[in-house]
Amino acid sequence: MPLQRYKLTIAYRGTNYHGWQRQSAPDTDLPDTAPASTLPISPTPLPTIQESAARALASVVGHPLNLVGSSRTDAGVHAKGQVAHFDTDQTQIPPDNLRRAANHKLPDDILIRSLEPAPADFDAIRWTVKKRYQYVIWNHPNRNPFSADLSWHRWQELDLSAIAAAAGLLEGEHDFTSFARTGHGRSSAVRTLHSCRLSHRGPLLIIGLESSGFLWHMCRIIVGTLLEIGLGRRPATDIPAMLAARDRQSAGLTAPPHGLYLQWIQFREPQAAATDTAPAVID
Amino acid sequence: MPLQRYKLTIAYRGTNYHGWQRQSAPDTDLPDTAPASTLPISPTPLPTIQESAARALASVVGHPLNLVGSSRTDAGVHAKGQVAHFDTDQTQIPPDNLRRAANHKLPDDILIRSLEPAPADFDAIRWTVKKRYQYVIWNHPNRNPFSADLSWHRWQELDLSAIAAAAGLLEGEHDFTSFARTGHGRSSAVRTLHSCRLSHRGPLLIIGLESSGFLWHMCRIIVGTLLEIGLGRRPATDIPAMLAARDRQSAGLTAPPHGLYLQWIQFREPQAAATDTAPAVID
Repeated sequence: MPLQRYKLTIAYRGTNYHGWQRQSAPDTDLPDTAPASTLPISPTPLPTIQESAARALASVVGHPLNLVGSSRTDAGVHAKGQVAHFDTDQTQIPPDNLRRAANHKLPDDILIRSLEPAPADFDAIRWTVKKRYQYVIWNHPNRNPFSADLSWHRWQELDLSAIAAAAGLLEGEHDFTSFARTGHGRSSAVRTLHSCRLSHRGPLLIIGLESSGFLWHMCRIIVGTLLEIGLGRRPATDIPAMLAARDRQSAGLTAPPHGLYLQWIQFREPQAAATDTAPAVID
Repeated sequence: MPLQRYKLTIAYRGTNYHGWQRQSAPDTDLPDTAPASTLPISPTPLPTIQESAARALASVVGHPLNLVGSSRTDAGVHAKGQVAHFDTDQTQIPPDNLRRAANHKLPDDILIRSLEPAPADFDAIRWTVKKRYQYVIWNHPNRNPFSADLSWHRWQELDLSAIAAAAGLLEGEHDFTSFARTGHGRSSAVRTLHSCRLSHRGPLLIIGLESSGFLWHMCRIIVGTLLEIGLGRRPATDIPAMLAARDRQSAGLTAPPHGLYLQWIQFREPQAAATDTAPAVID
C-alpha cells in the first residue's frame, strides 16, 4: 500500500507527563523560575505525550512510527489543540476507526481529537503559520481545590488595567530576547506577537497570546512579567525598556507551566501540486 | 480558656482520598457497582479528608481534635460545601487566622472555605435540615482529558426528556429501599426527595438532588438508573414499580463516585438559648 501521511489534533492534561517530548537541552538550571509550587513531583521519570501517543497509534497500525509534533510543550503544560503528523502504509484502516482505536489505548488524560489524511509534504512544524496559547490564572483569595494543576493561583488583588496596558505594549514585531529563556538556540529572537490580551470571567484571568513563532518559555516569562506589573512592582510603561534591553534579567519571573494551554495551531493551505494528489488519498 | 465549638465549610477534590472517613461497614462486596473506571487505583491506603483536615487544624491549635463531618462522602466523591465541627479551648486565635494557617498546611485539593464560632450545641450531623448533591456527566463522543476524575463520561446519545420525566417521578416522599445499597443500617428507608432535576450546559449534564436525608449510595443509584432510562433500556414509567418493589435489584447500576459533588448543607437556626450565649464567643 502507498505511504500515507496523517495529521492529528491532540488534547492533553500535561500534569502527569514530562512534556510533549524529552528536551535535548539540559533542563537542570531554572534560575528564572517562580517559587516551586506545592504540586507533587514524581520521583520516577514521567512518560512524554509523544511516546504515549506514538505507542498507542503504533499498536493499531501494527508498526513503530515517528510522531512529529508542532510544539514541544514543557512538562506540566496542557494542550487543547496540539498538532502532529506521522506516516503509515497501513491505509486500509478508515481514519476515524484508527483514531478511536488509538484513543481506546490511551490514558484518560490524552485525547486524539481528529485524525485525517494529509498531503505527503504536510509538516506539523514547517507548515505552521500561527499559534495561540492561553494562560489561566485563578485570581481569588482561596485556592480552587478542583483546578490546582490546571491554573496558576494568585491570591493578591491585581491591577487589571495595568496588565492590559502592558500586554498591549508587547504586541507587534519585537526582539523578544528579554522574554526568552537563554539557550533557546534560535539565531534571531525577533518575533511578531499578533495578539496579547487579557480577559476575565469572574476569578479566572486569561491571557491569550498569538504569534507565528514563540521562543522557549516566552509565554510564561510574559505572564510572569505581566503579573509583577499587576502587583504594582513595576509600571506597565517599563515594557519598551525591557524589550530594548535584550537581556533576560530585565523581564520578570517565569510563570509556572501548569497555567499554560496550547489552544490551536493554524497551518498554511496546501499548494496546488499537493491538492492535485488528494484523490490518491481517497482511493 | 472556655471550650469553643467551631463550624467549618470544606471543599475538596476526592480523587486522592479514601472518602471523608474510613467506613465502619465492610467495603469489599460491590456487586451493584458500574464497570471499573480506568482511573488509577492506588496500591497504598489513601488518607481520608477527615484525618487530613483534623491534622492540619490540630497543628495550628496545638492539640489533637475530633472533627465531626455532616456527610460521610465515599472515596472519589467531591465536595464544595461539606460541613464539620470541632471543639478547642485555644480561642485566642482569630477564626480567620486559624482558617488560613490550616489551609496553608493542607494539600492543594482540600480547602477550608469558612471557619466560624458556633453555639456549643451545634452538631454538623444532627442539625442538618437539607443537603444538595450534584452529579456531573460529560455527555460527548470524546472524553474530556481535563476532567477525567471530575465527571462521568457517557458517550452515548441520551434521551434527556425521559431522564427528566423519571427524575420527576422520584421527587416526593418514598421508601427508597430500591435505591440504597443494602446494609445502609437505617431503620427506615423512607425519605423525602425535595428535588431531583436535570439541567445541562452544552455537553455537561447535571443532576441535582436535594433531600433532608440520603441513604447509602442513593444519589449514585438514582443517577445510574436515570442513565439506563436515558439509554432507552427501560422506560421512565418504570420508576413507581421500582420504588414499590423495595428491592435493590429492581433499580439500575450504581454510577461511579467521581461525578458526584456534595454542594451544600442547610442547618436549622440556633435556638434562642444558644443565641443568648453568643456574646461569650466574642469576648
